Amino acid sequence: MMFFETSFPVRYYETDQMGIVHHSNYIRYFECARNGMMADGGYPIERCEEEGVTIPVVSVSCHYKRPAKMGDVLTVSAAIESVPMAKLVIRQAVRNQHGDLCVEGEVVLGFLNKETGHPTRCPEKLARLIESRLNDR
Amino acid sequence: MMFFETSFPVRYYETDQMGIVHHSNYIRYFECARNGMMADGGYPIERCEEEGVTIPVVSVSCHYKRPAKMGDVLTVSAAIESVPMAKLVIRQAVRNQHGDLCVEGEVVLGFLNKETGHPTRCPEKLARLIESRLNDR
Amino acid sequence: MMFFETSFPVRYYETDQMGIVHHSNYIRYFECARNGMMADGGYPIERCEEEGVTIPVVSVSCHYKRPAKMGDVLTVSAAIESVPMAKLVIRQAVRNQHGDLCVEGEVVLGFLNKETGHPTRCPEKLARLIESRLNDR
Amino acid sequence: MMFFETSFPVRYYETDQMGIVHHSNYIRYFECARNGMMADGGYPIERCEEEGVTIPVVSVSCHYKRPAKMGDVLTVSAAIESVPMAKLVIRQAVRNQHGDLCVEGEVVLGFLNKETGHPTRCPEKLARLIESRLNDR
Repeated sequence: MMFFETSFPVRYYETDQMGIVHHSNYIRYFECARNGMMADGGYPIERCEEEGVTIPVVSVSCHYKRPAKMGDVLTVSAAIESVPMAKLVIRQAVRNQHGDLCVEGEVVLGFLNKETGHPTRCPEKLARLIESRLNDR
Repeated sequence: MMFFETSFPVRYYETDQMGIVHHSNYIRYFECARNGMMADGGYPIERCEEEGVTIPVVSVSCHYKRPAKMGDVLTVSAAIESVPMAKLVIRQAVRNQHGDLCVEGEVVLGFLNKETGHPTRCPEKLARLIESRLNDR
Repeated sequence: MMFFETSFPVRYYETDQMGIVHHSNYIRYFECARNGMMADGGYPIERCEEEGVTIPVVSVSCHYKRPAKMGDVLTVSAAIESVPMAKLVIRQAVRNQHGDLCVEGEVVLGFLNKETGHPTRCPEKLARLIESRLNDR
Repeated sequence: MMFFETSFPVRYYETDQMGIVHHSNYIRYFECARNGMMADGGYPIERCEEEGVTIPVVSVSCHYKRPAKMGDVLTVSAAIESVPMAKLVIRQAVRNQHGDLCVEGEVVLGFLNKETGHPTRCPEKLARLIESRLNDR
């Protein structure tokens, strides 16, 4: 399994009038971990896009277990279990500073040729990167 | 089925560098339709909260079919098929001005007593509102 | 003066844990009115960009008078008083459903050639549109 | 001068279809530095609110010098030059990983009694914290 995690504090503007982090933000946190993973692996998303492939989201599922609040420092993880072909499946989680699971989910990504807008396969560089890390954990 | 839909143009800040609406925003659009439905039914979310019950999201699933873009006018729908007890299940969709399905999903909501923070049942007023509309469509 | 206004309800995710609309959102509301104005004038921002000119923000000033809250329906205005050359100055305001002034501000925009990234003059079509509307109000 | 800075990467969802960070996000970055400063000083915003005082924004001015992009790591600063009475003035800046100034601005904050909603003076704890740090830089 290729695994990556990144940590950051809750931002005030991410809270809502319930006094908790608005549920839509976890979808964004998931993305932070995915993109952090790519950058950490030496193939950042912006380079992938420059080289002609965008990686849009195909589906998201997200289960909310415990609300995050202002003052919390969150750790967001991304885990990949197999080398993608047409689709990349990523399991994701958000934990607070006490290790409590706040949210877990799964995101499926596709690959598009930036010029044609048509589906394409996972770029070779990204596939090799993932392959090289599958035994990380 | 209780059904509601609301329309609005894509906002520029909702686009990302792929030139499409960022996927996290559809989760927010879903919420607009849910809250529009409550307001339209005469029991807006802010009154429900004032009366002591918050309605946090328990889970979201979302399938992305076709990207929305700047210039599009979106119609977001919310549909409820049964009177909630502990959980409220809402089916949601986003279509563009051509009627194309952009995104569909399902959101499950829970009910919390605002004072205690503990789970509670669907407020009577909301349950009655939903019941009175189940034959709308 | 070329004048435009657009109305929409506060969205739940725009509130923060103070129970009011987070101050950053008014900057976004301003943009909605500017882009609504361009679309209404027959020259939407996305067409301007397709024709090679982007319109980035140069400066923003914003004065907060009265908080907007969930349940409010806001009217956001944009006013232009002169035909732009290198810069476009827009006065903006947000009022609630009672007509109370919530926020007022000024936004200055520049024009960039999309290919070169260099500053350019206001596109002829936009300048003519503004000129034709200066006596609107 | 009390001074604080914090760093983080640009998040993908913060970009817009111009391929740069949307201008509204810098207003949010400013807030991250302000709240980081309070937390670092041992008096986080959420404690201040719990103790009965909220700190809404009174005005913002913001000058955009150079766009930030995906892949950039930003450093956001907050500087306070005098102990606040009714208003707290904070100078703010965002620089990229090369030290280039992206955005600079000034934010003025007020203090509200959370119960009454009326203006109040800067809480004693916050005033003392700022006073103790005025010679930091």
